[in-house]
Amino acid sequence: MLINKMTELLQIKYPVIQAPMAGGVTTSNLVAAVSNSGGLGMIGAGYMSPGQIRDQIREVKQLTANSFGINLFIPTQFNATENEIRGAGKLLQPIRNQLRLQDVETKLPSYENECSTFQEQLKVLIEEKVPVCSFTFGVPSREVIKELKKQQIILLGTATTVEEAIINEKCGMDAVVLQGSEAGGHRGTFTNNDHGSLMGLMSLIPQTVDQVTIPVIAAGGIMDGRGLMAAICLGAKGVQMGTAFLTCIESGAHKLHKEAILNSKEDQTVLTRVYSGKWARGVKNKFYTDMQKYEENLPEFPVQNMLTNAIRKAASLQNNPDYMSLWAGQSASLAKHLSVEHQMKNIISEAEKMMT
Amino acid sequence: MLINKMTELLQIKYPVIQAPMAGGVTTSNLVAAVSNSGGLGMIGAGYMSPGQIRDQIREVKQLTANSFGINLFIPTQFNATENEIRGAGKLLQPIRNQLRLQDVETKLPSYENECSTFQEQLKVLIEEKVPVCSFTFGVPSREVIKELKKQQIILLGTATTVEEAIINEKCGMDAVVLQGSEAGGHRGTFTNNDHGSLMGLMSLIPQTVDQVTIPVIAAGGIMDGRGLMAAICLGAKGVQMGTAFLTCIESGAHKLHKEAILNSKEDQTVLTRVYSGKWARGVKNKFYTDMQKYEENLPEFPVQNMLTNAIRKAASLQNNPDYMSLWAGQSASLAKHLSVEHQMKNIISEAEKMMT
Repeated sequence: MLINKMTELLQIKYPVIQAPMAGGVTTSNLVAAVSNSGGLGMIGAGYMSPGQIRDQIREVKQLTANSFGINLFIPTQFNATENEIRGAGKLLQPIRNQLRLQDVETKLPSYENECSTFQEQLKVLIEEKVPVCSFTFGVPSREVIKELKKQQIILLGTATTVEEAIINEKCGMDAVVLQGSEAGGHRGTFTNNDHGSLMGLMSLIPQTVDQVTIPVIAAGGIMDGRGLMAAICLGAKGVQMGTAFLTCIESGAHKLHKEAILNSKEDQTVLTRVYSGKWARGVKNKFYTDMQKYEENLPEFPVQNMLTNAIRKAASLQNNPDYMSLWAGQSASLAKHLSVEHQMKNIISEAEKMMT
Repeated sequence: MLINKMTELLQIKYPVIQAPMAGGVTTSNLVAAVSNSGGLGMIGAGYMSPGQIRDQIREVKQLTANSFGINLFIPTQFNATENEIRGAGKLLQPIRNQLRLQDVETKLPSYENECSTFQEQLKVLIEEKVPVCSFTFGVPSREVIKELKKQQIILLGTATTVEEAIINEKCGMDAVVLQGSEAGGHRGTFTNNDHGSLMGLMSLIPQTVDQVTIPVIAAGGIMDGRGLMAAICLGAKGVQMGTAFLTCIESGAHKLHKEAILNSKEDQTVLTRVYSGKWARGVKNKFYTDMQKYEENLPEFPVQNMLTNAIRKAASLQNNPDYMSLWAGQSASLAKHLSVEHQMKNIISEAEKMMT
């Protein structure tokens, strides 16, 4: 059960993918350690420049001879008026003052810039011959898919509904990561902006595998061999785990981010768009409590993300978890502070024990 | 794996409990068919009078010699001012007109009445020697638990969080039904009224089984052998299935309720309190669309439930699904219209096949 068409496709020993968490979590050491342990390490490159991507790919290649992957964000159109942006900036001013942030210059995004960056990112992947590439927030254009396939790069899509999984298959993705409502970080939803239909994996996996033929990779709340085997019983071919690797020794997540997860008792996460303008799950903190009342009216991603960027950075530097984004899934209380090798061994041996 | 301390406790062959859906779904034929097929049939008696309960228990006993159970609601305190009730009634008036409902007399609930009804319901269970009793919306008092245990009735609690499962264990429940965010019908949450922390079973089961020693029964989105085996991998000892039995031939659910589920494509459910004042999951219909904007300000359960009672009844009689409550879990699209015996055979043979 642990060896199947998904592990063959990705050329990995175990059906475990490390989620491509953006924002500095996926250090080359983390990515390489996962690949060296028999899983698929993934670079979370959504916010990275083409140059940074090239450097990290080369670094990872130094550290592992095994397959690994990279994740990119599909640029999305957005609307934000001057007025909205000014209004949202005003709401953040008390927090900026609190963090002694003066004269923050916010570089606002433009869709055209995002698109040209995306093209340059893709160029780097191709030049550096990355084995696997996954996408979040949509499906790339037909031309991009054709070009990447010509280069024999394996393509993974992201879906949060059965409908989105079907779209991924139709567009030619080789496999699809299915993100349950349990998942930490940003929702990959791209067919509407409603976060109402948040499906748990217990519902989402079987309904999806009955409708698509490409391998389905389950993501959300999976922390150990129990979750891996449950996902496989439901019809997934493997799992993608974020929080479980975020607290590993090799992860680049902020020490206080790791601690917030490691110290969490029961589910203390919330789904919110106050940090970035897109729905995302993380451990509740003061930023959420302060901003929640404005949630529905904040600008869209990536505008709100840019507006809060300096705050989150300053909070990190000042070791102040109140204003960081503490992304985590609903199983945070199961997280452990281990080496990746140790973590992977635990996951696989627990799963193998269940099968005997 | 299918025979364990939970099946021994409940004296059943297979670890499958039919959810005690209230409101006429759990006919004696349904309950008995589940018990006769090796699972545990359950009478959803939350809204039933002591007399009705006695009649149905006797009827079920005529139809099966196997173990079966009953579910009761724990009465909860509620506040609703005259003004609130009048306001909520006004919002419903256009719908009453639509259904040609004239001069509806709404019998408003009182906590004291609910408590005395609950005592009488318990008396019937004891007199009729029901083997299993489960509770929703809280845990009964120490005296009640003591009395039921003296009568050797097996007690099942309901929890939606790890904390609630721990409370159930501490109070002496013999096992606990763990309701994931995928579940249809009313949320059993009793420690707060926030529906924010809706945990999917992939997260909720492993975190709970690590904290309690009593058997955990998983509920929510489980429709077949895949879900049963997944729940067991995660650490549950069995499952409770609602939607999967609601559409069975023997179920008393309205034909249009069954059809709404059987015809649903992907997840078309919403979590809402417009029907009853308590958060519950069902297939979206016109009543929801009309009332959603007032959701946060409607009176608490059971007040709103009483206020909408005549509407839901009239809609049923008039075969109008627009104003019925179409409870269903997030896996509705996997539902089938089968006999209970056939449904149970499918579930068990699929699960057994996975183990070989």
